[in-house]
Amino acid sequence: MTDQNPTAATASPINGAAVNGAGTISSVIPGWFSEISPMWPGEAHSLKVEKILFQGKSDYQDVMVFQSATYGKVLVLDGVIQLTERDECAYQEMITHLPLCSIPNPKKVLVIGGGDGGVLREVARHSSVEHIDICEIDKMVVDVSKQHFPDVAVGYEDPRVTLHVGDGVAFLKAAQEGSYDAVIVDSSDPIGPAEELFKKPFFESVAKALRPGGVMCTQAESIWLHMDIIEGIVENCRHVFKGSVNYAWTTVPTYPSGVIGFMLCSTEGPEVDFKNPINPIDVQENQIKSTIPLKFYNQEIHAAAFCLPSFAKKVIESKAEK
Amino acid sequence: MTDQNPTAATASPINGAAVNGAGTISSVIPGWFSEISPMWPGEAHSLKVEKILFQGKSDYQDVMVFQSATYGKVLVLDGVIQLTERDECAYQEMITHLPLCSIPNPKKVLVIGGGDGGVLREVARHSSVEHIDICEIDKMVVDVSKQHFPDVAVGYEDPRVTLHVGDGVAFLKAAQEGSYDAVIVDSSDPIGPAEELFKKPFFESVAKALRPGGVMCTQAESIWLHMDIIEGIVENCRHVFKGSVNYAWTTVPTYPSGVIGFMLCSTEGPEVDFKNPINPIDVQENQIKSTIPLKFYNQEIHAAAFCLPSFAKKVIESKAEK
Repeated sequence: MTDQNPTAATASPINGAAVNGAGTISSVIPGWFSEISPMWPGEAHSLKVEKILFQGKSDYQDVMVFQSATYGKVLVLDGVIQLTERDECAYQEMITHLPLCSIPNPKKVLVIGGGDGGVLREVARHSSVEHIDICEIDKMVVDVSKQHFPDVAVGYEDPRVTLHVGDGVAFLKAAQEGSYDAVIVDSSDPIGPAEELFKKPFFESVAKALRPGGVMCTQAESIWLHMDIIEGIVENCRHVFKGSVNYAWTTVPTYPSGVIGFMLCSTEGPEVDFKNPINPIDVQENQIKSTIPLKFYNQEIHAAAFCLPSFAKKVIESKAEK
Repeated sequence: MTDQNPTAATASPINGAAVNGAGTISSVIPGWFSEISPMWPGEAHSLKVEKILFQGKSDYQDVMVFQSATYGKVLVLDGVIQLTERDECAYQEMITHLPLCSIPNPKKVLVIGGGDGGVLREVARHSSVEHIDICEIDKMVVDVSKQHFPDVAVGYEDPRVTLHVGDGVAFLKAAQEGSYDAVIVDSSDPIGPAEELFKKPFFESVAKALRPGGVMCTQAESIWLHMDIIEGIVENCRHVFKGSVNYAWTTVPTYPSGVIGFMLCSTEGPEVDFKNPINPIDVQENQIKSTIPLKFYNQEIHAAAFCLPSFAKKVIESKAEK
C-alpha cells in the first residue's frame, strides 16, 4: 500500500468504492464497513452495517456512527474504528484502571482525548478522585457520543468532570506544574490529529504536569503491527520519565490485530509498581448511578497485561534499558 | 446470517462472489481473501492475496494455500484461516508449551489434528519426550504443509514422530489405557470434521488414554465470540477430568476476534498446577537443528494466559464449580 497517501485512511461504509486523498480506489464488501489503512497494509476488518446513524466532517476529521449487525453501535474517525458497544469495555477499563489502581488515592486526573466519555466513566468509579479534567480537540466527537453512545458518554454526567474543548498539547503546556496524580492519553493513531501525542515534547509536558510519583497511561498501538512505533515511544518515555516505564497490552477484537497496547510511566518520586496494583477498585464505590458494572478489568488481568510475548519483550526491554 | 447453511463457511479468495451450500451469495473485496462464517456473523477479516499457491478438495474439506501481501503464506481449510506464517508462533507455542511445561519430564505425547506439523515442531523442543504420535484425519493437510510451510512442517523431521493418518476419535478409543503423558488436540472449529472433538465421549477417551496426572490441551474457541461453546466444553471437562480444569487464552491476530482459547485439564493423580509451570523449556535443548527459536512463549506469558477478563471468568468459574 506504499502507493497510498500515508496521511489518510481509506474506508467506505456503504456499497461502492471510496477514494482517499491520493486518489487510490479501495473497494469494500457491499453493505459492510471495511477498515483499510496504510497503518495495517494488506489486511482489513469488516463489520456488517445495519444503518448509518451519523456522518459528518469536523474541523479535524471525518466522524461516522453506524449500527452494526453484531457489534452494536460503532464510532469511526477518519475511517478507523474507535469503539464498538460490544468490546469498548476492554479498552476503556484497561486504559483507566491500569494507572489509577497502581497509585494510592488518586485525586486529580487529566484525560487527553477520550471525547467519547468512556474513560471518564471509568475514572468516575474511583471515589478518591476529586477533580477530572478532560481536554478533547474535537467537539463533534463529544456531541455525537452523547447522542449515540449514552452508556459511554455517561462519564460526562459526573459532577467532578470539567470539559475543555481544545488542543491537548497546549492544555498540558499551560497546566500547573505537579498538579495531577494521573494523566490518561486516550488518543487515536499517530497519523492524523493525534500525531503530536506520540512525541517527546508532549511526554515532557505530561511529566511536568504530574506530581512526583504521578502516572501516565497512553494508548500505544499493537505489538503485532507497530513494534517500530512502540520502540520510539518506549525510547522517548525512558528519556522523560525517571520513575518506571512499562508496556502493557490487552485484547480488543475490533482494533487492528485484535490487541492494543498501553505505555505506563511514572515520574520521579514515590515508587510505582504498575505490575502489582495497590489500589483495588471497589464496584460498590461507583459514583454515577447509571453506570454499568465493570465487565473486563480485575486485579489478575491487570498484572497479566504486563506479560509480553518474547518477540515484543526483547525489543521493549532492550529500549527500556538504554 | 441465519439464512446461511450453518454447516459451511463461505469464503472466496479471488474477485467476485462465492456461493455456499445454501446458495447465499457473499461478495468479497476484490483481490482479497475474506473469512466469512456463521460462526462469527456480521464480521469478516480479510487478507490481501498476492498469489494462490494451492487449491484442492480432500475427502474431508476444501484446502487452500495463498501468498498474502503482509502475513506470509496462509493455510485455509473450509474457508477458515488455520495459520499464517506471521502469527502461527503464538498458537503453536501456546497450545504445546502450556501443557508440556506444566508437568515434569513428559515422555509420550499424542497430537490429534495438527496436520500442519507446527505442534510437532514445538513438542520436539522438549528433550524429555521419547515418543510423539500424531493422528491427523486429512493427508492432504500434511502433504500441502510439507510442500508450502517448511518452517511449520519441520516438526515431521523429528525421529520421535509417528504419523497416523486417520480418525482421532477412533485412534484414541484404541489407544492403550494410561499410556500418554499429554494429549494435545489441535482441531479446527466444531463445525465440520472436528465436531466430535468437542463432545464428552471424546474427552472420556482422552482421559482414559492419559496416565494419572496426565494433561490435555485442546483448542477452545474465543471468549469474545463463543462463550456458549466454551461453557459446554468446560462443563464436559469438569465431568470427565478429576484433576484440574482450566481455561487459558492468547492473542492470534488472524483468528476471529484476535484471540484463541485453550482448555487445560489433568486426570486424577499427581496434582498439576497449570498456572505455575514447573518444566521450563530450555532453548538449547532443541532437537531439530533447523527449527527457528521460540518467538512467543515464555514463563510469564504462560501464567498470564490463565487470567481472564471478568465477563469470561464469571461464566467459566461458575461452570467449573458445578
